[in-house]
Amino acid sequence: MKAVRLHHYGQHPVVEKVAEPEISTPYDVIVRIGGAGVCRTDLHIIEGQFSQKSGVILPYILGHENAGWVHAVGSAVDNVAIGDTVIVHPQITCGFCRSCRAGDDMHCVRAAFPGMDTNGGMAEFLKTTARSVVKLSSTLAPAAIAALADAGLTAYHAIKKATPMLYPGTKVVVIGAGGLGHIGIQCLKALTPAEIIVVDRSPEALELSRTLGADYTLLADGNQIAQVKEITDGQGAEAIIDFVGEGSAVDDGVAMLRRAGTYYVVGYGGQLQVPTIDIISTEINFMGNLVGTYNDLTELMTLTLEGKVTLHTATYPLEAANDAIHALDSGKLRGRAILIP
Amino acid sequence: MKAVRLHHYGQHPVVEKVAEPEISTPYDVIVRIGGAGVCRTDLHIIEGQFSQKSGVILPYILGHENAGWVHAVGSAVDNVAIGDTVIVHPQITCGFCRSCRAGDDMHCVRAAFPGMDTNGGMAEFLKTTARSVVKLSSTLAPAAIAALADAGLTAYHAIKKATPMLYPGTKVVVIGAGGLGHIGIQCLKALTPAEIIVVDRSPEALELSRTLGADYTLLADGNQIAQVKEITDGQGAEAIIDFVGEGSAVDDGVAMLRRAGTYYVVGYGGQLQVPTIDIISTEINFMGNLVGTYNDLTELMTLTLEGKVTLHTATYPLEAANDAIHALDSGKLRGRAILIP
Amino acid sequence: MKAVRLHHYGQHPVVEKVAEPEISTPYDVIVRIGGAGVCRTDLHIIEGQFSQKSGVILPYILGHENAGWVHAVGSAVDNVAIGDTVIVHPQITCGFCRSCRAGDDMHCVRAAFPGMDTNGGMAEFLKTTARSVVKLSSTLAPAAIAALADAGLTAYHAIKKATPMLYPGTKVVVIGAGGLGHIGIQCLKALTPAEIIVVDRSPEALELSRTLGADYTLLADGNQIAQVKEITDGQGAEAIIDFVGEGSAVDDGVAMLRRAGTYYVVGYGGQLQVPTIDIISTEINFMGNLVGTYNDLTELMTLTLEGKVTLHTATYPLEAANDAIHALDSGKLRGRAILIP
Amino acid sequence: MKAVRLHHYGQHPVVEKVAEPEISTPYDVIVRIGGAGVCRTDLHIIEGQFSQKSGVILPYILGHENAGWVHAVGSAVDNVAIGDTVIVHPQITCGFCRSCRAGDDMHCVRAAFPGMDTNGGMAEFLKTTARSVVKLSSTLAPAAIAALADAGLTAYHAIKKATPMLYPGTKVVVIGAGGLGHIGIQCLKALTPAEIIVVDRSPEALELSRTLGADYTLLADGNQIAQVKEITDGQGAEAIIDFVGEGSAVDDGVAMLRRAGTYYVVGYGGQLQVPTIDIISTEINFMGNLVGTYNDLTELMTLTLEGKVTLHTATYPLEAANDAIHALDSGKLRGRAILIP
Repeated sequence: MKAVRLHHYGQHPVVEKVAEPEISTPYDVIVRIGGAGVCRTDLHIIEGQFSQKSGVILPYILGHENAGWVHAVGSAVDNVAIGDTVIVHPQITCGFCRSCRAGDDMHCVRAAFPGMDTNGGMAEFLKTTARSVVKLSSTLAPAAIAALADAGLTAYHAIKKATPMLYPGTKVVVIGAGGLGHIGIQCLKALTPAEIIVVDRSPEALELSRTLGADYTLLADGNQIAQVKEITDGQGAEAIIDFVGEGSAVDDGVAMLRRAGTYYVVGYGGQLQVPTIDIISTEINFMGNLVGTYNDLTELMTLTLEGKVTLHTATYPLEAANDAIHALDSGKLRGRAILIP
Repeated sequence: MKAVRLHHYGQHPVVEKVAEPEISTPYDVIVRIGGAGVCRTDLHIIEGQFSQKSGVILPYILGHENAGWVHAVGSAVDNVAIGDTVIVHPQITCGFCRSCRAGDDMHCVRAAFPGMDTNGGMAEFLKTTARSVVKLSSTLAPAAIAALADAGLTAYHAIKKATPMLYPGTKVVVIGAGGLGHIGIQCLKALTPAEIIVVDRSPEALELSRTLGADYTLLADGNQIAQVKEITDGQGAEAIIDFVGEGSAVDDGVAMLRRAGTYYVVGYGGQLQVPTIDIISTEINFMGNLVGTYNDLTELMTLTLEGKVTLHTATYPLEAANDAIHALDSGKLRGRAILIP
Repeated sequence: MKAVRLHHYGQHPVVEKVAEPEISTPYDVIVRIGGAGVCRTDLHIIEGQFSQKSGVILPYILGHENAGWVHAVGSAVDNVAIGDTVIVHPQITCGFCRSCRAGDDMHCVRAAFPGMDTNGGMAEFLKTTARSVVKLSSTLAPAAIAALADAGLTAYHAIKKATPMLYPGTKVVVIGAGGLGHIGIQCLKALTPAEIIVVDRSPEALELSRTLGADYTLLADGNQIAQVKEITDGQGAEAIIDFVGEGSAVDDGVAMLRRAGTYYVVGYGGQLQVPTIDIISTEINFMGNLVGTYNDLTELMTLTLEGKVTLHTATYPLEAANDAIHALDSGKLRGRAILIP
Repeated sequence: MKAVRLHHYGQHPVVEKVAEPEISTPYDVIVRIGGAGVCRTDLHIIEGQFSQKSGVILPYILGHENAGWVHAVGSAVDNVAIGDTVIVHPQITCGFCRSCRAGDDMHCVRAAFPGMDTNGGMAEFLKTTARSVVKLSSTLAPAAIAALADAGLTAYHAIKKATPMLYPGTKVVVIGAGGLGHIGIQCLKALTPAEIIVVDRSPEALELSRTLGADYTLLADGNQIAQVKEITDGQGAEAIIDFVGEGSAVDDGVAMLRRAGTYYVVGYGGQLQVPTIDIISTEINFMGNLVGTYNDLTELMTLTLEGKVTLHTATYPLEAANDAIHALDSGKLRGRAILIP
């Protein structure tokens, strides 16, 4: 089958022929890929930022944001059948450790993460397990919803954590209205009555935010802290959802936080740096956020079916993977890039 | 009356005669001080670290950790009567803002903080309000429990937040077994079934920790991260309660944290500095902690009455305030210093 | 002033002249009534159902659902000023007991409840306290929002408790789409992504429910349990909000509940009667619901200002109080009856 | 192998020879039974109370409270190995439904319950699955801890739910200090700082309760409601844990509840019957409680290993199953009866 493989860190991945994956254990599931998202994390993988954390051996197939149709199943699989439309939770989990038994899939102690530490879904077929596939209505097109498997799931997971503090009258700042952020805004609208303030460098992203329901949109031009303070009567916002996590976004975001507020770190690349006296004197909190749980993914798919979350995507043939990667890296991409085998 | 007043930042406070406070509004309460604790924050105040945050005009009376007996009350006060033994919540709160209405006293938008931004309790009398006094059994000696008003309350508040994640089989690291930490250990024993690992530079503090129920005591000699990892099967602890918050304690503490664990910042003076990729890839959290609520203080007093929390104190006459301050500053103090007018 | 007073249980209240209330303590507030709601509880009070629980001495002024303008304030009041538009939280609370200190106003141990156990607001003026008034925008007409003070607040409080279990894909049954229920539906839409099933005996109430966003509307004709089961794939709903609480509604509601689901009792008059084996074998829960907290009321006013909650009311002059009471009692009333002095 | 089988409802089960269970699917586990508890639910099963709910076809092997050693495993099992000491979670769960994915094992939609709806553990061997076995230290004797698999797990689960409301100064009533109750008292001591009031008909049970740490022990002689009121300053207790659930215990228990308190239904057989006006006017709650989750069981085993929970048991040879059943039924049993093959 065709697949997008990374051979050397710092070099373009290669589209080439490789052997198809095969069923080897009772709960294996092989998915025929209908769409595989291209994520900023793929850029970081290619650069080698995860070489130590993942420990993967090159070459391997990229792609951790996948949807498609069930192609083959192991002998014990009965939650999906061949032909079912599925979205793929990014993590392969053991199902037996305490985290798995608590529904906390991302902290499975024996997990694999296709596209990160084993072969991923930028290919015709992906091998995963019965625990990682969510069966969908056959009316859904995998290419249209693949980006929910990682970008959407991460955004939803962070917003869901923030929901209990976002009662009527509160304000939430969304930093970054890109691939994750534009989904996050929709999740906030669906799950909370809070007023939404969006901060981004791009006027186009802010325009999109307004159509998705943002109450305030602020250009990240250096005035955004003062503007958030003005909107919040000088107090700051109860929650900051930071989809950027690098550059000045973090320091700026911390400055927008209200006493007793919480900062949700989602994006990464930079540094969180705060004097402990500022943390304790205002009693602020910082919460890390990974991709969500399996149940989070089913909830997000419900919002999608109900039309409460819609995606902005740009499709590319699998062979054009490097075009998609280049478009993302150069900031020219509008919406999420989806590769179609 | 005699009082300990700060006249100039960077200089010793002065014990001198000042006018007694008087009742001026319906809910005022004047407390005859039985004991006033000396806190590391007093050192920071004297150094001038809080001059901007508090905006206090010098000279003023220090002392934010107070207990005594009700001496006079305003016309509308009916929750305490003259002669009642009371411990004083450190914050004077309005009772009308959203935070007050949610029980979240420390985030009152119109608060005063005696000893910090207005006259405190290192004196014969302290002026506070009906909302800030907790009536106690007359069998309790104010000097014996004054340190619970701030040191104890702060420790209890942090431990109470950590309690929901400290189920049987979890491990919690207490960094610093001094004035706050030795109370925190007792609160952990009273509220949770978690195993307690204490880290401190002082062998004497560790010895005290063992008598209070610590399961593991580690000297902060550079090996403590490795030891915590060993005790936790290489995973780290579910919760870190950091009563130090400065120097290498913070970085060390972060390194002891398990995936999905939470770091409770209580001590201050240093810097929290963590790459955002580390925060999201392990989904760790950081929570700020201020002194607790009024209800927290009543709960802590219950633990004290039940003998579940006991204090290690050293008493000084009010006139010897600078001796106590010097003992604390030079690290020679054992237990909490309490001034007795 | 004119007031609606109950002289004898079982008889019509009387509209008559009485003395105006006067400021007597520092935190008193006298409100000039702009609108006073008529509630089914008023019918129960007139019938004498609360004579023992309230212990009120007749005659006294009815009316526990009030809004208006500040007319006079005690010497210590500074959260509102004369002329301010206010809605009145139904409970007068002490501010000092543990419940008050936790924000749990309805469990104040020294509370008074105007209209229930002391003079209420079906009059030209009402005496309450600074703790019970919520300052509103002067653009709001008291008569238009008075019903939020009790009917709205109770509905909001119950829905807010249910919110954490109402994630995407869940279903909630609202039993009764009358005075409280039609507000409850709007709160559910504002706070949760759950699908809403409304059950009522009245086709008109169901029609109104649909315009407010109900996903399913079921006539309470004996088939409603089967219909809920069908809508929920045979499982029942995650939450039942019962605004009726009497007759067959309770048994029917319990039968609609899913395993591990929760039944919110709001209406009253009947009996909850369930074999303990049914409670444990499906692990279902029952939660009582009173009128909400002061902060709940401020949140509900935010939803109202944002246009997310609108009321259906019918206004009557104060003198026509008995007409309003009769209309409510005979089931002829559409929307909430509001008396205007 | 020898097994205790029920042939006819209303008749004694029979100890007889049956075929040993065999591995048939990849995740099967066969446990050699070291101890099988006899539970009041077994009496109810024999009487036929569960015939409809379980739908089991007679004859079948009783026994839902089991511990032993791994005897055989399916091809995919890697969380336990032959020879491991294990305690058996009573439910066989699918691992794929939403409840399983949330850690809420008891609400699995495709569950089996050995001893209830399929062959149980009153035998030499029990067939279960990899998801249901908790690996234990080899130092633990299965017969000594088998009763934790159901009685202990149910008690722990209920206490864990109650824990968040049991802060210092609160009081909890335990109704029934028998098989479940005596474990519940120990869990309360380990997990909460609340004061414990135990109510039982048996002076011996109360005596045991005192040794386990009960603060108050009340004979259920008709005075117990008044005594609870007296102990709680007339307010009632914040939580009632009802391990009886039948007869007058339920009505009595409800009368002991404080405003805003919660009643945990654990025992069954009777009826919960409360006017809805009483539920709403005091805002009380009722929570159903089934046996706990897999993670609950691991936490309980930790408490056991730490010596915080100890069991009172009486052992019988498997052949004497009917003696044990008779002893339980006649009220002559002290502690939990454990059958040993």
